[in-house]
Amino acid sequence: MGTASLTPTLRWTGDSIEIIDQTRLPAELVLLDVRDAASAVDAIERLAIRGAPALGAFGALALVVGLDEAQPDSLDAAREVLERLRHEIGDARPTAVNLRWAVDRTVDAALTPCGSFDASSNTRGGSAGRESSDGASSTRGNTGSVAELRQRLLDEALAIGAEDARACAEIGRLGREVLAEATVIATHCNAGRLATAGIGTALAAFYAKAAAGEPVRVLAAESRPLLQGARLTAWELADAGIDVSVVPDGAMASLIAGGEVDAVIVGADRIAANGDTANKVGTLAHALAAADAGIGFYVAAPTTTVDAAVPSGDRIVIEQRSPDEVHHAGGQRLTPEDAKAVNPAFDVTPARLITAIITDGGVLRPPYEQSIAQALITAGDELRGSDG
Amino acid sequence: MGTASLTPTLRWTGDSIEIIDQTRLPAELVLLDVRDAASAVDAIERLAIRGAPALGAFGALALVVGLDEAQPDSLDAAREVLERLRHEIGDARPTAVNLRWAVDRTVDAALTPCGSFDASSNTRGGSAGRESSDGASSTRGNTGSVAELRQRLLDEALAIGAEDARACAEIGRLGREVLAEATVIATHCNAGRLATAGIGTALAAFYAKAAAGEPVRVLAAESRPLLQGARLTAWELADAGIDVSVVPDGAMASLIAGGEVDAVIVGADRIAANGDTANKVGTLAHALAAADAGIGFYVAAPTTTVDAAVPSGDRIVIEQRSPDEVHHAGGQRLTPEDAKAVNPAFDVTPARLITAIITDGGVLRPPYEQSIAQALITAGDELRGSDG
Repeated sequence: MGTASLTPTLRWTGDSIEIIDQTRLPAELVLLDVRDAASAVDAIERLAIRGAPALGAFGALALVVGLDEAQPDSLDAAREVLERLRHEIGDARPTAVNLRWAVDRTVDAALTPCGSFDASSNTRGGSAGRESSDGASSTRGNTGSVAELRQRLLDEALAIGAEDARACAEIGRLGREVLAEATVIATHCNAGRLATAGIGTALAAFYAKAAAGEPVRVLAAESRPLLQGARLTAWELADAGIDVSVVPDGAMASLIAGGEVDAVIVGADRIAANGDTANKVGTLAHALAAADAGIGFYVAAPTTTVDAAVPSGDRIVIEQRSPDEVHHAGGQRLTPEDAKAVNPAFDVTPARLITAIITDGGVLRPPYEQSIAQALITAGDELRGSDG
Repeated sequence: MGTASLTPTLRWTGDSIEIIDQTRLPAELVLLDVRDAASAVDAIERLAIRGAPALGAFGALALVVGLDEAQPDSLDAAREVLERLRHEIGDARPTAVNLRWAVDRTVDAALTPCGSFDASSNTRGGSAGRESSDGASSTRGNTGSVAELRQRLLDEALAIGAEDARACAEIGRLGREVLAEATVIATHCNAGRLATAGIGTALAAFYAKAAAGEPVRVLAAESRPLLQGARLTAWELADAGIDVSVVPDGAMASLIAGGEVDAVIVGADRIAANGDTANKVGTLAHALAAADAGIGFYVAAPTTTVDAAVPSGDRIVIEQRSPDEVHHAGGQRLTPEDAKAVNPAFDVTPARLITAIITDGGVLRPPYEQSIAQALITAGDELRGSDG
């Protein structure tokens, strides 16, 4: 099994963005061809594309189709279009930090030629590894034409996707090493190729194991209320020929306690400086079960997921989502009309329950205050090195 | 709020059984009038009535409507009808131990007049508290007529329901005492009036608190895959005017860890001699979260739920149900066609995670080997006393 032959979550066709319409999964695989800004915003709002890294890569490319659609006839007009798109696309999902960040980075790169590059505007990734989409020599430093501005925009957008794909591949490589002894592995929600521009974070380890010919059997917690595990993780792993079974969220603890699970690996929405990890609601229960049974519980995420400004998990504000998501499933009302519902979007797993955090900058172990701080210093050095 | 004004789960009308059709909940309250054996079997098979104690009380009364329907013209014919019904009704759900037990007990009581009563055939409850439905004097000891046999059958069937209602009331009284300091209380699945002939077991404590005017706010875990919490617990508590919010199973650990829950109380399918408790899958995760957060985790069940023949939870075989229950919700397929699913029906919570077991024979505390053994001795004494 190779992941190269799989339908990518998003792909630059040369003049449009082709994406998998995730609202149609798992019933059918439908591809959308996104050619204008309104369609891009619609795809984001409808969750046709979701997952923080995938949203970042998509939002950046959406700037290019938006610029092409507007056909500005001067540099001033092009700059106006980009400032409009920065908000139109960047604000399509207000809480999606990666989307906002990727859009800002791409617009700034297009408006700021290399000669006047301001490192402070670009602290989360740099433009190392930037590659031209059509093999033409880079025109950075020359702000002369709309075509050149458009090329800088496209280069930066493609660089964001390429960086994410490289981070996923490295997380997969390290995840495979960490999980070398594990065969039956549980996961939660969807931290896979449908959520990134690469092979995912938590699920990257499964793709790496499968590619190496190692046996792997995945238990995917269904992840109520929105069922990303049952719908998306089950689809993308089955699509890649990996053995996957869906498990009700509440049943995972029983399987873990019964010795039927070798390890648990999940993604992360945000990691505090002490290692406390916010992820899709339901994660904490698996972590408690893993700790009680003495099996490994791993978090897989790019180092950019660390929010060094948050010292510990109790400082992470839990987003409360609409009760309607709990009241319904499969399009039907499940609960009585006069019942209420509680719907926190994610939970916080304390660092003491986490065996290791697998990042593109290495495998971090407790005590996390030190290992995370060291990883951030190393990432900063690399960033400065690439720009220096 | 009084529970007396609520629609009972099952009720003897004088010549039929009126039940709430639980397959129509929570969308609408529909009552079924069951007047023949085939309708009774159909109601059991369709899960129009469910919950071990409710099934027992219903199955016993179903014998009476089955006998009335057959109109036997001799005692021999009546005995043949009862032996046929014993299997037709008793086997309607093969794994429902209470149904089998209640049907056997009722048929045996009808066929065995008091004078030749065999205590060994009736070890799970005795016929103490038996009451005549129409105030007529008991005719036990006289096997002379079909009418007298039918009276013994009805008396025993009504006694089973009355005993269950008394056990529920006592569990509610004790549960209210144990939970005196708790206001926000979590529960799982449905261990309420819809599952019993009384006010339930775990939910009995909520009815008792509400009846005493004490504040209570219930968090009902939705209990995938069959959603008994979202559908049934939410309905019966809201119907009784009790504040109830549905919570995705995986979100409960987060609420518990966040200090938003004062205690957890659940029912039980089977309790081992050491206190290990089998209950609807999903229970264990709540118990682990409660233990980690340092709040009370309580099991509420009649003493008949103790299976003294099972020394510990690892000897309890976990029933695996159809993957289809996981693949679907709200009538829709959730998962891709090529994904598998795992669907254990219940899990085992180890005794070390259980703060107390609230029974009709008292509140049992660790070490459970001793407290459970003592409770069984006391229950046996009461049984022998009533028959002696």
